[in-house]
This record gives sequence, C-alpha cells and structure tokens, in this order.
Amino acid sequence: MGHDLECTISLLARTPAALDALLRDLPETWTFRNEGENTWSAFDIVGHLIHGERTDWIPRARMILQFGDTQTFEPFDRWGHVRECQGKSLGQLLDEFAHWRSENLGELRALNLRPEDLDRRGRHPALGIVSLSELLAAWAAHDLTHLHQVSRVMAHQYREAVGPWTRFLGVMQCAGRSSPK
Amino acid sequence: MGHDLECTISLLARTPAALDALLRDLPETWTFRNEGENTWSAFDIVGHLIHGERTDWIPRARMILQFGDTQTFEPFDRWGHVRECQGKSLGQLLDEFAHWRSENLGELRALNLRPEDLDRRGRHPALGIVSLSELLAAWAAHDLTHLHQVSRVMAHQYREAVGPWTRFLGVMQCAGRSSPK
Repeated sequence: MGHDLECTISLLARTPAALDALLRDLPETWTFRNEGENTWSAFDIVGHLIHGERTDWIPRARMILQFGDTQTFEPFDRWGHVRECQGKSLGQLLDEFAHWRSENLGELRALNLRPEDLDRRGRHPALGIVSLSELLAAWAAHDLTHLHQVSRVMAHQYREAVGPWTRFLGVMQCAGRSSPK
Repeated sequence: MGHDLECTISLLARTPAALDALLRDLPETWTFRNEGENTWSAFDIVGHLIHGERTDWIPRARMILQFGDTQTFEPFDRWGHVRECQGKSLGQLLDEFAHWRSENLGELRALNLRPEDLDRRGRHPALGIVSLSELLAAWAAHDLTHLHQVSRVMAHQYREAVGPWTRFLGVMQCAGRSSPK
C-alpha cells in the first residue's frame, strides 16, 4: 500500500502513550539494560525518539517545503540522545516525548498538506532525493522500528531465564538492528 | 540475568494497556493487514494473546504445581485465536485480553510462590522438562515477542511508502518470526 497521511498521523499520535503504558515505573532491569556494548536500553531509545522530534522529522519537512531539494538536510546525530537523556528520569523522558510529539503533530496538521505537497522533494545527506511523503511515512515507521527494538532489548534480558523457550520466541532470534541514518 | 518474579509480573501487568494505547481505534490499514499468506495481523495477535491467557500459561503453572512432570502440558493450539477472534472487534479483543490478564495475575499472586516453587518441574510436549520459573519468564517474553511482531507487521504496511528509508529501518529487515510452540 502507498502512504496515507491520516494513517501516519493516527500512529504517530499513539506511540507516546503506548511507550508510556509499557515503560513507566517498570523495574530498571527492563528499562536501563541494553544488548551489550554500544547498544541502547529502552531509556536510550526514548531519548533518541525525543531527539528525532526536536531535530529530524518536522525540521526536515519544513526544509522540503521551504527549499525543496536545493538544501541538504542536517545529518541526524545518532548519539544525540545522550544529551537528551542526561540527568533525567525515564518518566521525564516519556513526558518530554509526549510533549514534543503533540507539538509536532499540531505543526504538521497546521501545514494543511495537499496531495501535491506530499510529492515535493528534499535532499537527504545519505539517501539523496526523497519526497515529503516518504519522510512522513518514515517518521511513523521509525516509531515502529523503535517499538520493535524496545521489545527486543527487553526480551534480551530474559534470554537465560526462559530456558528452552528461547527457540520458540522470534524476538530472541531477531537480528534486525537499525542502521545509523 | 536470571528470572525475577516481580519483574515478570510488572511487565505482564503492562502489556494490555500498551497494546490498547497503540491499537485501539487505529485505522484498519494498521490493524487488519498481515505480512502475507499464513501470517498474522495485529488483530490476530491480540486474539492469540487471549488464547494463551485462557489455555497456556496459568493452566500450565497449575499443572506443574499439581502434577510436576508426571503429566505433559496440553499442546498449545497456534491457530486457536481464530475462534477467539470470530465476530469480534479489535476493541472487544483488547478488553478481553485486559480482563484475562488481570484475572490470571490475580491467580498468580494468590499462589504466593516461594523460591523453591519456582524450581518445580513440568513436562512440555515439545521442550521436555521445564521449570515453573522458565514458564513464567517465557510468559513475559512471549508478550515481548508479540509486541515485536505487531511492530513488524505494522511497519510492513509502509514498506513501499518509506521509499529509500527502508534500509535504515531495522524493523524492515527483521526475519525473527516466532515458531509454533
């Protein structure tokens, strides 16, 4: 199927509450552990999502609408969450993510995008020419890739505990890491 | 890390609300589509989780406590969700899942399991001897494997829409399917 802006917005609107329901006040075993060196915990992932709200999706959409493909997007800092997270609790991060997402969806709606706007082109530093439609679809799919990652990182903490069940649990076999973007 | 019963219960208690926040009233594009023939939609997955609540985890825990490894668990019907789902809306399924999970956690807490109970052994039809501890850890990890799957099935619907972003999104590369158990 193609891209449907209303579907994108419906999903983007729900992710903060879904992560909140899953993660808030969970024991730190689930939220602060990662999959090993240079990997992220659920806490880091929420920080990364905030960093994306602040510097990635809506700023890039604005750039497409203003400059088309004559200006290249700022490269996204894949370790930007380190600053976002510093000195904060997971509860604070969840609140911030919900706040930024709500602001950004307000801004997206206010753009009143017409179908022809979605075809407008921008320039990604690694991917080259991309459309506004692809950017917005990727925003929603990016939520899903990190929900997918959160589930995997959390399941990893129980890899030993489940004993022989490991082989029946797809999440324990997943090697679908996201690449830097 | 090993198994911690309080961690298991904390997670089990949150999954219904997390899925509710993510899925309730989402457009059917997200919730009723699957990944192709013989694969599941988010709707099917919630049905499967209900079927597990009714026939798998707590019934097996009871069996371990009553009969140890002298009786083999009933095999789990991996297509049992078809009956669970019939004629129901996703909203109804989410309500049912929350209801069964809450009942089952009530029953688990009422068992007042001591550390030595967690070492008790049962017999799985495919895995052989398993401990109560492993069964309960697998119950929580099974929630995560299906949250992982829901994210992947939903992301699949936007595989085309995200254009060149596909290669940056780990969820689009995931081949971590769960096996029948």
